[in-house]
Amino acid sequence: MSRPRVLVIGGGFGGLSVVHGLRKADVDITLLDKRNHHLFQPLLYQVASAVLSPNDIASPLRAILAGQKNLTVLLGEAVAIDLTAKVVTARDPDGKSHALPYDRLVLAAGLATSWFGREEAWAPHAPGLKDLDDALALRHRVLSAFERAEWSAEAADRRRLLTFVVVGGGPTGVEMAGALAEIARRSLVSDFSRVAPAEARVVLVEGGAGVLGTYAPSLRQAALDSLLSLGVEVRLGQRVADIDENGVLVRLADGSEARIEAATVVWAAGLRAAPIAATLGTPSDRMGRLVVNPDLSLPGHPEVFVIGDLAAAKEPTDQWPGVAQNALQGGAFVARQIKAPPSQPAVYRYRDLGSMATIGRSKAIAEVGGVALSGRLAWLMWLFIHLMALVGFRNRVAVLGEWAWSYLTWQRHARIIRPEPRR
Amino acid sequence: MSRPRVLVIGGGFGGLSVVHGLRKADVDITLLDKRNHHLFQPLLYQVASAVLSPNDIASPLRAILAGQKNLTVLLGEAVAIDLTAKVVTARDPDGKSHALPYDRLVLAAGLATSWFGREEAWAPHAPGLKDLDDALALRHRVLSAFERAEWSAEAADRRRLLTFVVVGGGPTGVEMAGALAEIARRSLVSDFSRVAPAEARVVLVEGGAGVLGTYAPSLRQAALDSLLSLGVEVRLGQRVADIDENGVLVRLADGSEARIEAATVVWAAGLRAAPIAATLGTPSDRMGRLVVNPDLSLPGHPEVFVIGDLAAAKEPTDQWPGVAQNALQGGAFVARQIKAPPSQPAVYRYRDLGSMATIGRSKAIAEVGGVALSGRLAWLMWLFIHLMALVGFRNRVAVLGEWAWSYLTWQRHARIIRPEPRR
Repeated sequence: MSRPRVLVIGGGFGGLSVVHGLRKADVDITLLDKRNHHLFQPLLYQVASAVLSPNDIASPLRAILAGQKNLTVLLGEAVAIDLTAKVVTARDPDGKSHALPYDRLVLAAGLATSWFGREEAWAPHAPGLKDLDDALALRHRVLSAFERAEWSAEAADRRRLLTFVVVGGGPTGVEMAGALAEIARRSLVSDFSRVAPAEARVVLVEGGAGVLGTYAPSLRQAALDSLLSLGVEVRLGQRVADIDENGVLVRLADGSEARIEAATVVWAAGLRAAPIAATLGTPSDRMGRLVVNPDLSLPGHPEVFVIGDLAAAKEPTDQWPGVAQNALQGGAFVARQIKAPPSQPAVYRYRDLGSMATIGRSKAIAEVGGVALSGRLAWLMWLFIHLMALVGFRNRVAVLGEWAWSYLTWQRHARIIRPEPRR
Repeated sequence: MSRPRVLVIGGGFGGLSVVHGLRKADVDITLLDKRNHHLFQPLLYQVASAVLSPNDIASPLRAILAGQKNLTVLLGEAVAIDLTAKVVTARDPDGKSHALPYDRLVLAAGLATSWFGREEAWAPHAPGLKDLDDALALRHRVLSAFERAEWSAEAADRRRLLTFVVVGGGPTGVEMAGALAEIARRSLVSDFSRVAPAEARVVLVEGGAGVLGTYAPSLRQAALDSLLSLGVEVRLGQRVADIDENGVLVRLADGSEARIEAATVVWAAGLRAAPIAATLGTPSDRMGRLVVNPDLSLPGHPEVFVIGDLAAAKEPTDQWPGVAQNALQGGAFVARQIKAPPSQPAVYRYRDLGSMATIGRSKAIAEVGGVALSGRLAWLMWLFIHLMALVGFRNRVAVLGEWAWSYLTWQRHARIIRPEPRR
């Protein structure tokens, strides 16, 4: 009998964790990803804000996994899954379709940006922040806005060009708003003759009553204080009603509307399951995430597992947080189930190792083991943990170098303007 | 009387040299460039071959020139020059036109790729190697070719995907062919399951009787030997008759034709003056370069200077080489003329500091002060000189790190596949 074929869709934290967990197993693994690299998403906003380069936070999957004998890596996109025939249809870079049969399937395709049904109208004006192209598109817009303002003789025009709106007060929105404020107030100050980058305005729009809704109240307040001290204009209880190329229309709680003229808008407000999930027809939650059994298998399909951000708990109140740790732990758990299927289905239990967010230089918040931390100590913890979690010694050293340089000089290194990537 | 306005078009070696030479002069300088960065072109092929990242060889102009009080940097493209009214029309990133009046004008816009009148048909299939977008487009094609081959079950298909044709045996073509051969034979070897990257084929097509036509015969032979030892198939005396998406048609000296099936073609065969030169209507040479007086001024316009690759000597036999040194020296010379206009026109004399090319690991050739060198010593010289010439301490350290890492591990770090940049 030939060895079981394990097909893993997605080379993020979850997918890598499964592949790694099976490195000595007597199976044939195929890892399918539409990108040729693993992306360290927690630092994506630092590419968008010109601190890091794409190569600092991305590692080729083939390089990470080089030497694993039971593995084939394929660059392509899963477009359909036949759960009955146990075959995934994948499209290669040339657009040709291929059938990939499996004995075990692991879905680790993660989440994509959601514009709440307004993708066509809003996405072109307000890119999300989920992959390198998003980050580079944003970097391009931010840096270009300053260049365009340098030409402009009209104050209103300059004001619009130097206004940056971040939609969404979760970790990504807060980190991006803090980074933008630092760029505007410090990094570019001396570089322009006509515009004073300190005139730049960063607006954070959040529909709820505070930022970082999932954190403890003391930390939420600390984050808000940090944003305000950086000069970020935080608008709470306001929702985005419309976005066009010249700005954002926000709706206040009382139903009144206000317009913010802005050339650059960052969308950090919504996520939904990767498109492949919707093709399965199995139960999913509001965000399209696939509902799983306690052992992370798909109901009715014990040979199919869902891990990381793509998995939804049966009870919404039990939902795991959308963090790398959940994907890593889920991947390791599923690898164990595949290596030695238990007689009784096991139960996946997420172990909370803490969560953290950074708002700017020496400003961060962290919750670890029930302890709330903020300020410089939290920031140093954030630095250390993210550096250690980066895949590969090579990236770790490069990022440490960039951070040290950026911290000491207040400069942003990755400031090359190139055309926005083609979609 | 207000201070003289000096307008410099182009932020390459020549433009930066003029701006730097005028840093203490009592003038108002405007530097106009269509890119926001200075590009270290001699290492562009290393971005194309996935050793370096764009940020390693590009520095923001504003960062390089930060602190120069008599300077304004503008991101935009010169589209017309009125020599009589002394006004340059520039287009800003939004496409709006602006009039930039000048008292002194320095043209340092350099060269662009020329496909010998076949741009429309050939350029999409055979990118040149003049800017970051070119280099990233090539990197994308090279890395994707291996990924596509990994999917393919047909040997002929795989052979086409793994064939890389470099057109042109000048320094760029030779360096690119050597780098491609190293990628194929070493860097990617262990990373693929189905394809053996060692099967890859690198073909260098050159119309002349040898590579590196401007070098001494002993060095040309050494370069050829190096290419052959790397497994490059060197086709001399063959000209490209056609290029399409599946390969190249070459014409031999006897008029017969042969086809090379190849998914990736690099165009390193032709250059012409930047488009702005043709709008002037003053005498130019075969490549569209502007013919200048011995003091680098435009005939009939003592207030306009042309430097670097864009300048043509009156006698073609006196033509300066297309190297960074000529641009740097020309820029310094012109800055002196502007600061203290001589009573008699001065004469620009290019001082040959030598030239060099690298073919691969420990393989290079160099001509310095009439002495010809090849092999490891030439390679170490090449490394040292290019490192020292890189603008900025920051880039120097980063590139040294990448090279050391690449040399020790045989790996290519900058292997992230992203969509080709939009043109």
